[in-house]
Amino acid sequence: MVRFLTAGESHGKGVTVIVEGFPSGVPVERKFVDRELKRRMSGYGRGGRMGIEADTAEFTSGVRFGMTLGSPICIHVKNKDFKNWKRIMAPFGKGPGDKDIVINPRPGHADLPGVLKRGAKDVRDVLERASARETVARVAAGALAKLLLAQFDIWVMSYVTSVGTVRSRRRVFREGLLEKEPDRDPLRMIDSKKSQEAMELIRGSAKRGDSVGGTFEVLGFGIPPGLGDYTQWDRRLDGKLAMALMSIPAIKGIEIGDAFESSRRGGGRVHDRIFAKPGKHLFFERYRLPFMRKTNNAGGLEGGMTNGEDLILRCYMKPIPTLTVPLESVSIRDYSQTAAVKERSDICAVPAASVIGESMVALVLAGSLLGKFGGDFLEDTIKGYESYLGRICEKS
Amino acid sequence: MVRFLTAGESHGKGVTVIVEGFPSGVPVERKFVDRELKRRMSGYGRGGRMGIEADTAEFTSGVRFGMTLGSPICIHVKNKDFKNWKRIMAPFGKGPGDKDIVINPRPGHADLPGVLKRGAKDVRDVLERASARETVARVAAGALAKLLLAQFDIWVMSYVTSVGTVRSRRRVFREGLLEKEPDRDPLRMIDSKKSQEAMELIRGSAKRGDSVGGTFEVLGFGIPPGLGDYTQWDRRLDGKLAMALMSIPAIKGIEIGDAFESSRRGGGRVHDRIFAKPGKHLFFERYRLPFMRKTNNAGGLEGGMTNGEDLILRCYMKPIPTLTVPLESVSIRDYSQTAAVKERSDICAVPAASVIGESMVALVLAGSLLGKFGGDFLEDTIKGYESYLGRICEKS
Amino acid sequence: MVRFLTAGESHGKGVTVIVEGFPSGVPVERKFVDRELKRRMSGYGRGGRMGIEADTAEFTSGVRFGMTLGSPICIHVKNKDFKNWKRIMAPFGKGPGDKDIVINPRPGHADLPGVLKRGAKDVRDVLERASARETVARVAAGALAKLLLAQFDIWVMSYVTSVGTVRSRRRVFREGLLEKEPDRDPLRMIDSKKSQEAMELIRGSAKRGDSVGGTFEVLGFGIPPGLGDYTQWDRRLDGKLAMALMSIPAIKGIEIGDAFESSRRGGGRVHDRIFAKPGKHLFFERYRLPFMRKTNNAGGLEGGMTNGEDLILRCYMKPIPTLTVPLESVSIRDYSQTAAVKERSDICAVPAASVIGESMVALVLAGSLLGKFGGDFLEDTIKGYESYLGRICEKS
Amino acid sequence: MVRFLTAGESHGKGVTVIVEGFPSGVPVERKFVDRELKRRMSGYGRGGRMGIEADTAEFTSGVRFGMTLGSPICIHVKNKDFKNWKRIMAPFGKGPGDKDIVINPRPGHADLPGVLKRGAKDVRDVLERASARETVARVAAGALAKLLLAQFDIWVMSYVTSVGTVRSRRRVFREGLLEKEPDRDPLRMIDSKKSQEAMELIRGSAKRGDSVGGTFEVLGFGIPPGLGDYTQWDRRLDGKLAMALMSIPAIKGIEIGDAFESSRRGGGRVHDRIFAKPGKHLFFERYRLPFMRKTNNAGGLEGGMTNGEDLILRCYMKPIPTLTVPLESVSIRDYSQTAAVKERSDICAVPAASVIGESMVALVLAGSLLGKFGGDFLEDTIKGYESYLGRICEKS
Repeated sequence: MVRFLTAGESHGKGVTVIVEGFPSGVPVERKFVDRELKRRMSGYGRGGRMGIEADTAEFTSGVRFGMTLGSPICIHVKNKDFKNWKRIMAPFGKGPGDKDIVINPRPGHADLPGVLKRGAKDVRDVLERASARETVARVAAGALAKLLLAQFDIWVMSYVTSVGTVRSRRRVFREGLLEKEPDRDPLRMIDSKKSQEAMELIRGSAKRGDSVGGTFEVLGFGIPPGLGDYTQWDRRLDGKLAMALMSIPAIKGIEIGDAFESSRRGGGRVHDRIFAKPGKHLFFERYRLPFMRKTNNAGGLEGGMTNGEDLILRCYMKPIPTLTVPLESVSIRDYSQTAAVKERSDICAVPAASVIGESMVALVLAGSLLGKFGGDFLEDTIKGYESYLGRICEKS
Repeated sequence: MVRFLTAGESHGKGVTVIVEGFPSGVPVERKFVDRELKRRMSGYGRGGRMGIEADTAEFTSGVRFGMTLGSPICIHVKNKDFKNWKRIMAPFGKGPGDKDIVINPRPGHADLPGVLKRGAKDVRDVLERASARETVARVAAGALAKLLLAQFDIWVMSYVTSVGTVRSRRRVFREGLLEKEPDRDPLRMIDSKKSQEAMELIRGSAKRGDSVGGTFEVLGFGIPPGLGDYTQWDRRLDGKLAMALMSIPAIKGIEIGDAFESSRRGGGRVHDRIFAKPGKHLFFERYRLPFMRKTNNAGGLEGGMTNGEDLILRCYMKPIPTLTVPLESVSIRDYSQTAAVKERSDICAVPAASVIGESMVALVLAGSLLGKFGGDFLEDTIKGYESYLGRICEKS
Repeated sequence: MVRFLTAGESHGKGVTVIVEGFPSGVPVERKFVDRELKRRMSGYGRGGRMGIEADTAEFTSGVRFGMTLGSPICIHVKNKDFKNWKRIMAPFGKGPGDKDIVINPRPGHADLPGVLKRGAKDVRDVLERASARETVARVAAGALAKLLLAQFDIWVMSYVTSVGTVRSRRRVFREGLLEKEPDRDPLRMIDSKKSQEAMELIRGSAKRGDSVGGTFEVLGFGIPPGLGDYTQWDRRLDGKLAMALMSIPAIKGIEIGDAFESSRRGGGRVHDRIFAKPGKHLFFERYRLPFMRKTNNAGGLEGGMTNGEDLILRCYMKPIPTLTVPLESVSIRDYSQTAAVKERSDICAVPAASVIGESMVALVLAGSLLGKFGGDFLEDTIKGYESYLGRICEKS
Repeated sequence: MVRFLTAGESHGKGVTVIVEGFPSGVPVERKFVDRELKRRMSGYGRGGRMGIEADTAEFTSGVRFGMTLGSPICIHVKNKDFKNWKRIMAPFGKGPGDKDIVINPRPGHADLPGVLKRGAKDVRDVLERASARETVARVAAGALAKLLLAQFDIWVMSYVTSVGTVRSRRRVFREGLLEKEPDRDPLRMIDSKKSQEAMELIRGSAKRGDSVGGTFEVLGFGIPPGLGDYTQWDRRLDGKLAMALMSIPAIKGIEIGDAFESSRRGGGRVHDRIFAKPGKHLFFERYRLPFMRKTNNAGGLEGGMTNGEDLILRCYMKPIPTLTVPLESVSIRDYSQTAAVKERSDICAVPAASVIGESMVALVLAGSLLGKFGGDFLEDTIKGYESYLGRICEKS
């Protein structure tokens, strides 16, 4: 069981994550973690804050000389502009003056339900934690998960498939993504013509004070069959992945494989026929798994388990709730009609969300893998994994 | 914390669920539970088995004289055709002869990854548990959750929005559903013309030996704002609901509110503006919550919490994997090419899935409600609930 | 992760347990499970009810032809005298008449705090679930755990060390217990002279209308080092074992190894020195673990982990709260002074508790073992276990 | 649900804890937290390190202007001597030279089973996390729990009852402890004559290079009846408390109330009779709970629940495993006989353990309280608590 808890407010001292249940013996490169944090910050359409921050991971426990110890890993990422926010966000001391209290919640955000839930008199008490800044911690944890998965030659990647109404129809697979195309594009799209169009759309939105959503795909490669389970509803991997992705701020829809198209078609055109002997398209070719598919409408998941095919997950992101031309709102103090607070000003965060999506998927996969093969010491886990592959492929 | 575990194989003795963490003092009608089980069985396009069964709930614990005790509630639903399956599914004794062993897994089902995972030599060892028969237990548990929610005037309903390519554009809300329109339609659709078309489509599929998927919506009414949380990823209600719904067999996509449309639009057209004083469209009118919305694109969830608006969740279901004209498969014994086993023969199970969707949503909501307001004794929970409503509405 | 939930009231229809997270491929003998249930019922000093019942396990799921499927295992044990209790304990219908309502809680039992917690007007609403009858379900689950552990040559046993003031000073180890001495003694003691004395004491208590407690030891043999963990407080095996044992009704104290004596001695006389090469007293001799101890004051646990030595756990049980000459109590209806209800009439249940102790320890060990070595398919778990033993003993 | 995870190695950068599930609106005094940390460090018989450290809590999230936000609270406590350990404990860079590698595990510590479990080549990879230094994080978390409990006038205290063979027979209750006697004594004992004797004993042990254990009691006052549960084994409060306390390093035995004495006596002399109307000894006098006890052999727990009486928990601590005259051990490198490493040099840590015991009990109680009364916003929790007290005391 891998567990992680994150902590930290958007303008507080920083963001912290503790990841525990990780095996000993996993090599950790600090640079890789920092690169992941940087990927989260990038993308066309980000607001001013992205300039301030150059997030770097400080490891305060769990790693010794570049190797995990098996003890909890704690990573702290400083908020570099905390100095400017001390007056507003100090843990102790006298609270902010009346003019610094936020009373006008943003539609589409945690602001209003959060204030009601927590009895807050200042929307900031809610919005600071509900901010997408928290996802820094998830990406740091996800980086660790990716480092573990890499030991099993399992890779999680993503790319942006649409921004607002601009949708790329190009699909991409392992080979394309391994060339790291998406990271080279300002919007993490793989169709540069569409990317140009999308940037144009973002510029238009910016001018109008509007924000833009979009869609992205998270893909997993090299995943053995049999992660997840069919025996109890809360052991199913499809459910866990859906929860992990839906928990990313602004994500409102999840599709596994071609879910929407599959709901329209007959079963004969949907289910991925099984063929004998290892096939071309099959990643598990090298392990000689004696079953292959020529299609992957299931997105790599059958019966709540991985089936050895690529994992394909698509996320639908709504536009960011903070608008520079703010929407109507109501004061939590006197219930008068007002305009929502303007807190941050990204126009489009779909590229960032796609990186966070990778992190969440990597964390779910890492947990499932360690659960299935044992998670005390990497060498033991690898032996368990290879023994399993040997068994399921043994007669081929 | 409400927990439930289900047990039972499709052709075993029966299906059992233990629901625990339920408060004392909740009135339970056996008829209501049986009616829910019946709703799960109904729907045009079901196979022969639906005729055999007339599922009834046997309460073996946790309820005394029609009232919950606070102790675990155990419900057992007999499989009435177990007598015909004893030779194949006995817990003890000599196993089945070679001709009764299933060696050809169905594409799209748990069969193949399950066999690999569990080291099974007989696909039946997997398919019996992976069967949708397990959802009987979820519906029984969901019925209990609905009985609890009813004490708070919270209602969970559903209707089928499409079957294959036949899609109804009519939307329906609280008033329409309270009239129980959907249950009167053989496909739980609210547009009888579309329902006719859809039945035609199912008949055509049946003739071709094919199966059909579709979509449905699960709606929640009367839910107070502030269920769920924004403070940690795994406390968010959107994530929990996504997991609960995605865990239903054959569900491959989840949409909260207008997720797919929202990913295309600008923020100004997506986020549900907040208006002062209680409004017409607001269910919480009677509690005089001093905030209202005129739109509900968020589907009742903001920041991982309910916001007092109706909950709107849409599920995408793939066609059933078992086809009467079976798909290509491979023998798990000798890896020869073969046809998949024909295990069951529903053509379309979207209406049943919509009832299961209600159950899963009701269970998640019941758990969140009891977590927020305390869950030992119904009367205490109600007091906590009313005290909360008094607080958040106090100044109106 | 192994989970189990129990359900059932003392005089209801029966007791049910669902155990899930169990691997496929574990052989299950029904006779063994029934024998365990019988062991729980036995012991000198039991009341009249023990005569009525001859508990037998009905497997309703999870086992097919004597082999676990990997799906949830549901066991139901009928309450054979339910027919006599229908009027009092029916799930539905009209409640009992006023004279059947229990209003006088027993000191030392869940009765009073339970009634306050659950808002019950009838103490029976609480006492039926708080009854030790629930432990039937734990013993059934524990029997499954033992069957699993047996595949790894891990054994959990117990014997009674004292009854009231009669204490046996004889200690016993693996060899003695394997001869099954304790089960041959009416009090599960290994010193027949003391057992005679203890029976005399029980007879005296019975005459006075009093009850008797005592102590017992649960021992584990053949457990590999490294189960449990030191990295997070709730992963420690000592804590999990303490919780599991303290959760048995009437258990009020837990000792690991020679805890009480160790708190008095200097470290030099407490800690179990480590010696090179496998030793006589070491069970792991056959695996040639290159570390041995000559003492076992730690009771087999160091740093929250098993250390390869025998597990030694001692439990302290208070006397049963129900007395035939009842204690003072207060009516929950009008707060008048009264005598406590006389519900059941065991005089001494220490032998039964020792069997329940075995079950709880077996369940904790089974869960830890499957967590460490993977738990989908027994053959895989065994391979992981052997690979681990190979590694830690490799250079010997 | 309150969750907390700790991280940090003994000589790493520091120790971190994230506590989440805490309500908003709880006042937090930094000084109180620091005082608790100081209490953990104090006590006669501590080694040299205690001098170096003056632990102080840095709040990096979850608290704003002295008030909890409801978001996760992260506290970091720096290890002030990390600068001296950088070469040995750096997260990245080149590992230590051969002479700095620890190869001789200490008997009685996590060292040997930990090394086997994690495949470590350096015992330091294990001992750094298994160190009692981790309990700094628990005490910080426990301080938060105490601040919450104080809002409900619930207090958790402790005192040392024995050091080695020196045992104080004086018992103490609420009044005595509230005067803070224990903290004034160098050993946290309440019998200064015995304390003098115990210090003498410690000095003697120090001279011999030996270590000393002991016992302590953790007491809880003002706890309402009905925390915990009888309905499922893992909901019982006795079990949770036992787990929490047994998870403290070196604790090997737990006693609730007079467990050991109760196992010897007849039921008539053990169970705490119930008397009408509120009594003198009853803390709940002021709430006029219409039930009272004159004895408290149950230690405040019946049926796995609090019963309104004081909570009494006794812990048995073994001597510290690190001895200045080290015990025999075996090299993990070449299996040669050697002496154990000398890592730290407290002689007696019973006073510190008693403070940690308070913290763990406070955390369990805080979690149970928030679970029962709801945990989003302190004001709501208090209302739920008062409404409950009103109900259970209503007719008095």
